[in-house]
Amino acid sequence: ADVQSSADTRQIAINKVGIKAIRHPVKVLDKSGGIQHTIAVFNMYVGLPHNFKGTHMSRFVEILNTEEREISVESFPAMLRHMVDRLEAETGHIEMNFPFFINKAAPVSGVQSLMDYDVTLIGDIRDGEIEATLRVVVPVTSLCPCSKKISERGAHNQRSHVTVTLCADDHVWIEEIVDLVESEASCELFGLLKRPDEKYVTERAYDNPKFVEDMVRDVAARLNADPRIRRYTVESENFESIHNHSAYALIEKTPD
Amino acid sequence: ADVQSSADTRQIAINKVGIKAIRHPVKVLDKSGGIQHTIAVFNMYVGLPHNFKGTHMSRFVEILNTEEREISVESFPAMLRHMVDRLEAETGHIEMNFPFFINKAAPVSGVQSLMDYDVTLIGDIRDGEIEATLRVVVPVTSLCPCSKKISERGAHNQRSHVTVTLCADDHVWIEEIVDLVESEASCELFGLLKRPDEKYVTERAYDNPKFVEDMVRDVAARLNADPRIRRYTVESENFESIHNHSAYALIEKTPD
Amino acid sequence: ADVQSSADTRQIAINKVGIKAIRHPVKVLDKSGGIQHTIAVFNMYVGLPHNFKGTHMSRFVEILNTEEREISVESFPAMLRHMVDRLEAETGHIEMNFPFFINKAAPVSGVQSLMDYDVTLIGDIRDGEIEATLRVVVPVTSLCPCSKKISERGAHNQRSHVTVTLCADDHVWIEEIVDLVESEASCELFGLLKRPDEKYVTERAYDNPKFVEDMVRDVAARLNADPRIRRYTVESENFESIHNHSAYALIEKTPD
Amino acid sequence: ADVQSSADTRQIAINKVGIKAIRHPVKVLDKSGGIQHTIAVFNMYVGLPHNFKGTHMSRFVEILNTEEREISVESFPAMLRHMVDRLEAETGHIEMNFPFFINKAAPVSGVQSLMDYDVTLIGDIRDGEIEATLRVVVPVTSLCPCSKKISERGAHNQRSHVTVTLCADDHVWIEEIVDLVESEASCELFGLLKRPDEKYVTERAYDNPKFVEDMVRDVAARLNADPRIRRYTVESENFESIHNHSAYALIEKTPD
Repeated sequence: ADVQSSADTRQIAINKVGIKAIRHPVKVLDKSGGIQHTIAVFNMYVGLPHNFKGTHMSRFVEILNTEEREISVESFPAMLRHMVDRLEAETGHIEMNFPFFINKAAPVSGVQSLMDYDVTLIGDIRDGEIEATLRVVVPVTSLCPCSKKISERGAHNQRSHVTVTLCADDHVWIEEIVDLVESEASCELFGLLKRPDEKYVTERAYDNPKFVEDMVRDVAARLNADPRIRRYTVESENFESIHNHSAYALIEKTPD
Repeated sequence: ADVQSSADTRQIAINKVGIKAIRHPVKVLDKSGGIQHTIAVFNMYVGLPHNFKGTHMSRFVEILNTEEREISVESFPAMLRHMVDRLEAETGHIEMNFPFFINKAAPVSGVQSLMDYDVTLIGDIRDGEIEATLRVVVPVTSLCPCSKKISERGAHNQRSHVTVTLCADDHVWIEEIVDLVESEASCELFGLLKRPDEKYVTERAYDNPKFVEDMVRDVAARLNADPRIRRYTVESENFESIHNHSAYALIEKTPD
Repeated sequence: ADVQSSADTRQIAINKVGIKAIRHPVKVLDKSGGIQHTIAVFNMYVGLPHNFKGTHMSRFVEILNTEEREISVESFPAMLRHMVDRLEAETGHIEMNFPFFINKAAPVSGVQSLMDYDVTLIGDIRDGEIEATLRVVVPVTSLCPCSKKISERGAHNQRSHVTVTLCADDHVWIEEIVDLVESEASCELFGLLKRPDEKYVTERAYDNPKFVEDMVRDVAARLNADPRIRRYTVESENFESIHNHSAYALIEKTPD
Repeated sequence: ADVQSSADTRQIAINKVGIKAIRHPVKVLDKSGGIQHTIAVFNMYVGLPHNFKGTHMSRFVEILNTEEREISVESFPAMLRHMVDRLEAETGHIEMNFPFFINKAAPVSGVQSLMDYDVTLIGDIRDGEIEATLRVVVPVTSLCPCSKKISERGAHNQRSHVTVTLCADDHVWIEEIVDLVESEASCELFGLLKRPDEKYVTERAYDNPKFVEDMVRDVAARLNADPRIRRYTVESENFESIHNHSAYALIEKTPD
């Protein structure tokens, strides 16, 4: 018999056991209706009751490889159910992290280019109930209100990473979170900017200064106003252009 | 007046705001009584009530630079209190992550060499009460029991990272956690091994196979037996030598 | 007129100027004839003569976005020519780094699973002449001959990264380099292994011990025997399972 | 006898073999005369003639551990000679990478704080001759001249990494390279800035716009003017605040 299936007498259950940091091709359905091919890094775990010595690591990898070559993000809930079935577990957890692209038009010239965003889907299953979490990292420009106010000319600005992690009662598109964050930043980023676009984004950021505190509050206010969203965390890390460290803020909202 | 000190009407408090990823020299007191000089990366945050527009970022950096050049790890609680005072906050959070060295004797030859460990101290202060968390990453050898059992010769083994994160009611030395984890691994690591030492560690690991599940359970059992430890998480990530991904397990114990 | 196009009087030419670390979807033609969708990180540079003040950064991004959404790896030489044309440069350099997948059958059970490899294409163009460089990182198992010889049982082994960087006079498939390296390792890696496969890879590695020196020499000998290959570097980094550091070796062959 | 010392018949010499990514405490002498304690990551390699099967990995680690606990950077040449002696090699190569701190005074208020810089020392020895290379990464502010010129207000700016790698005929202090680069940037960075300092650095950067091309040229011009410096590479990577990618430039000067 398997070593893994033998009894265990230590009386200690394991919260999560499985495989970590395995890459696999995936495909994601766009809000625009297109199919996006990308590469995900998966973590896949199950809970292991105290009386089992070990789990079956190869079954996790089988789940990734039973589907057609590219795993469909839409099959994420089915994958979670399949995993706990196959591993005979009561709880399961899958994370998949992948770059996601949005085709954006520059603000004045309208020239199009792709922008990349880091997205993580996290699924937890317990007694057949699934809770899905979406995390999106949106890189933006932040411009410092204090620097602008006290200086006769110019204002320091920098790239910032705004990370939204949310749990919703209804479907939320990745693109919706990106749009929400970009509209609250000093300015959004673009892959390709022509001269009049560069003028536009420079002035737009200068006219729209935000502290790291403003960034997370303004995103939080928008998330608060969305009835679909049950809980969230919003973080901003500003890679300060005048320091060799970051400014950082975080707001967490949990259901009452 | 400061832009930061003006009133805010969005009615949204900020859980954490401050500086992230700033490096500073520190010194740590050894269990052996020596002083260890090392370099830490700090994250320092306070809670910001809803009615304040912003915090004062420069004060965080002042706290790092008011002491003598090297910050003493022993002054960590004082630093937390100083931070919430200086920032007029009710809650505060500091993380400091640094490499820590232990001088180890090889198991047979006794030759000595340093081994490095990643350590993080995390302090939370709320209404004057401090909760301190210690995290230690201990790299070890793991050897697979299944591979050993089914194979006529050899067994796959690899480097693993065992991470213990704990909250205790009394002082716990970094060296105690390292010792505890190393004694439960298939074998501990050394910087320097002579020929008879290499024979020893090879056979020791072969005689002491552990699944990732065993590793976290055996460490958990030891932590359960220590009355000082109130809650903990123990994780193991095995960088499998036969796969291009990791095996992973986690046990979390929270107070009842 | 553009600031970039104005004259420069410092009399210093710039070897490389352009964009770094931009992600874009790509597609790669398999040796098996299939199309593989993946995500690449690009660095794109041109040489700038001393008398020009600056290059046109937006044109690099345009080149990535003029094609259909996914850039074809086969169009790499055309991209290089297009870049130097568009930027009016005499020299150009493009690097594209992407994960590449190979569907492998386990050695006994034959179960199939994908393995991922890091691949970088590097192209240099000078006066219309292109030199293409291929870099493939192949993760393998290495098992220590010394540990095996001196120990009564077992032998330490670990994951290693073998990196081959080569310049060839004729087309070389990524899959050829992967096969070559995997056949010279103590054992190759697989995503999915069933019990009899795990027995096989354990014994195969034990029967086939290799020092880091052997690994690079045996790969070098194979590359020496391939008349297509003009120059190469082969490196191996073994993430030692008995130490917290790596063993490393490198052989470089340049044309006489 | 050692497996490593047996004869090898493959007729392939190894350019570099040794240990990689090992951490050890070090101390560095300041230009100001102080001693700085820090942590270095070492790579240590020797050349291996074709007729030797392997090197002695443990001897590299012994070299790190024979000195007092902290290795002195000043002993770098002695360490190189000791390594090739101990390993009976004709060529050797050591890299040590460490964070280095400089106490800086803010430009207006004069408040002091530490800034961290990544430094790498590289030493090559061949037939008893040592060539030492110094690499310093200096983080600075860059402000875009084009953005400033075309915009009615503001200008995008960001953190940039300027990396200087040089070989000199005479001693060059780390602090000299830091000073040189910082004086050529749009503005230098500081750990701690009070309000009048923030006004100063904002206006200083605005008044001193630099393309990535200007940054490397202006640093190169200064290095050209220093008779001690035999060859160098200067690179700048600007983490653009308006894009999700970097602008990059490199100038290399080799002796005629």
